[in-house]
Amino acid sequence: MRLVSYTHQNESGVGVMIDDESFVALPKAAPELPRSLRGILELGNDAFAKARTSTEGRSPDHRLDGVTIEPLISEPPAIWCVGVNYAAHREETGRKPSEQPTMFMRIGASQVGHRQAMVVPKASNMLDYEGELAVVIGRGGRHISQSEAMGHVAGYSCYNDGSVRDWQRHTSQFGPGKNFYRTGGFGPWLLTADELPNPYEQTLVTRVSGEELQRTTVDLMLFRIEKLIEYLSTMYPLNPGDVISTGTPAGVGWKRDPQRFLVAGDVVEVEISGVGTLSNPVINET
Amino acid sequence: MRLVSYTHQNESGVGVMIDDESFVALPKAAPELPRSLRGILELGNDAFAKARTSTEGRSPDHRLDGVTIEPLISEPPAIWCVGVNYAAHREETGRKPSEQPTMFMRIGASQVGHRQAMVVPKASNMLDYEGELAVVIGRGGRHISQSEAMGHVAGYSCYNDGSVRDWQRHTSQFGPGKNFYRTGGFGPWLLTADELPNPYEQTLVTRVSGEELQRTTVDLMLFRIEKLIEYLSTMYPLNPGDVISTGTPAGVGWKRDPQRFLVAGDVVEVEISGVGTLSNPVINET
Repeated sequence: MRLVSYTHQNESGVGVMIDDESFVALPKAAPELPRSLRGILELGNDAFAKARTSTEGRSPDHRLDGVTIEPLISEPPAIWCVGVNYAAHREETGRKPSEQPTMFMRIGASQVGHRQAMVVPKASNMLDYEGELAVVIGRGGRHISQSEAMGHVAGYSCYNDGSVRDWQRHTSQFGPGKNFYRTGGFGPWLLTADELPNPYEQTLVTRVSGEELQRTTVDLMLFRIEKLIEYLSTMYPLNPGDVISTGTPAGVGWKRDPQRFLVAGDVVEVEISGVGTLSNPVINET
Repeated sequence: MRLVSYTHQNESGVGVMIDDESFVALPKAAPELPRSLRGILELGNDAFAKARTSTEGRSPDHRLDGVTIEPLISEPPAIWCVGVNYAAHREETGRKPSEQPTMFMRIGASQVGHRQAMVVPKASNMLDYEGELAVVIGRGGRHISQSEAMGHVAGYSCYNDGSVRDWQRHTSQFGPGKNFYRTGGFGPWLLTADELPNPYEQTLVTRVSGEELQRTTVDLMLFRIEKLIEYLSTMYPLNPGDVISTGTPAGVGWKRDPQRFLVAGDVVEVEISGVGTLSNPVINET
C-alpha cells in the first residue's frame, strides 16, 4: 500500500494510491480514520488494515496533479538525518570513519512535498541536493535490538536532504544549513514495509534537470537501518511518525568539479527502485 | 503574567500563576482558550489578554505540588540550542570563537517539566547539567531584523540543556548527546516579556544538590537574543512556540576537576533572577 498526504480545497487528508497517479481519499472511504498520516501511524496496524479494506474496489477520488501533495509527514516528532553514511560520499567530504552514526536533525518547516518547489534562499546560492532513502517508524519503543528493528518500520519513502552548504559550515554543527525553509523534499508517498521486504536490494538515483548526479545501491549504506534504530532507541523511546533519512551517496553538487548548485528552473528527482520518485522543481525565494 | 503547563487527573491545561505556588486553571477561567501553551501562543495577543482578564480576582484552582507540571511546551515546532555562547564556557571547552552562533536541536521527547525527574540513562554515566535562559517566540516571521527581534519574544523561562557527554562526542554532531529521554528541563513557567524588559540584567545560577556550580550575568552572552532571532529567521519563518535556549555559562560538570556528573538523588536547580527557578530531581533509568 502506498499512502500520500495531500491538501484539497483547504482540507488535508491521507490517500491510498490506486496507480502511480490517482488515489482514494481516506476522508471519504474511511472518515473515522485520522486526517494525518502521523495520526494513522499512531493508531498502528488496525488503522492500516482499515485503510486497506476501505479502499478495495473503490474508484479513485483524485489525481496527484489535482491536489497539493504535502510533505509525507508535515511535523514528525523527530526527523533524524544521517551524515556521511555511504563510503564514497564520506571520502568526497574528507571525513574520517566513525564508530557511531553522524546524526543531525531537521524541523518540519524545512520540508516540502512531492512536486512542491524547493526554494533557493536569498541568503545563499549554495543550495544542494542529497537523495536519500527515508525510513518511517510505525511501532515505537525503546532499546530496540537490531534483530527486532525492522518490525518497527512502517514503510519507506524518498528524501531530498536539501542543504545550504555555506550555512552548514558556519560552525561544527550542520543544523542551520539543513533547516532552510522548503529545502527538504519528503515523498511522494509511504510504501508500506510489507511491500519492500529488502530495502538493501534497491538502487537510489538523483537527477537534476534530467542529468544523473548520484547513484548507489542501498546495500552500500555504512550504518544500516537496523543499527540506526538501535542507536536512536537507546536515546529515547521512538515514536510513530519519527523519520530517519538514511544518508546520501557520493555525487553531491558542492563536491563536483565544477560545483553544481541548484538554481531556479531546475527539477530534482530522487528515485528509489521499488519505492517511487520524488520530484521537486526549484524556485528562488521571493 | 506567568503561565504554567500542567496535567491534572489526565487533563492537560495552562495555568496563570497567582503566587509562586498556586495558579488559576485556564480550562476553568477561560474554557474557550486552547488547552496548550503552544495553542495560546498561536492565537497571540488576544489570547494572552483573555488569559489575563479571565483570571483577575479569581482564587487559585491548584497548587503546583498538586499537579504534574509539564515541559513548558511539550512539542515545540523547534527547540534550538546555542553552543558555547558564553566566553568562559567556550574557553573551558577549548573551542575557538566563531562568527556565527553554534546551533543544534532538541526534540520534545527529550524534555521534562519543573519538578519532574531527569533520567540518567542506562547507556551512560555522563549526564551533565547546563543552566540556560530560554526564549519563547510569540509572533512568528521571517527576516526579522535585530531591531525588531524583541517584539517577537513572548517571554522567558529556564532551560536545563541536559547533555550526555560521551554520546555528544560520538561524532562532530551534538544531537545524540542532547536528546536522551527526559534529560532537558524546561520551566517552571513562561514569564511574559512585558514583565522582563531587560533580560540581560539578570543573573543565571545553576545549583546541584545545593552547591552552586554555574553563575553568570546574562549580559555576558556572546550572540545576543536579537542576533539569534535574526539568524534563525533568515533560515525559515519562525513559528509561535519555537524555543531558543541561549547557551550555558562556564562550570559544567564534565569540565570540572574532578568531573561532576549527575547521579540519582541529585537535585538540579536553574535559577534566573526575575524569571524563576527550575528544579529537577535526578533518577536512574529503570
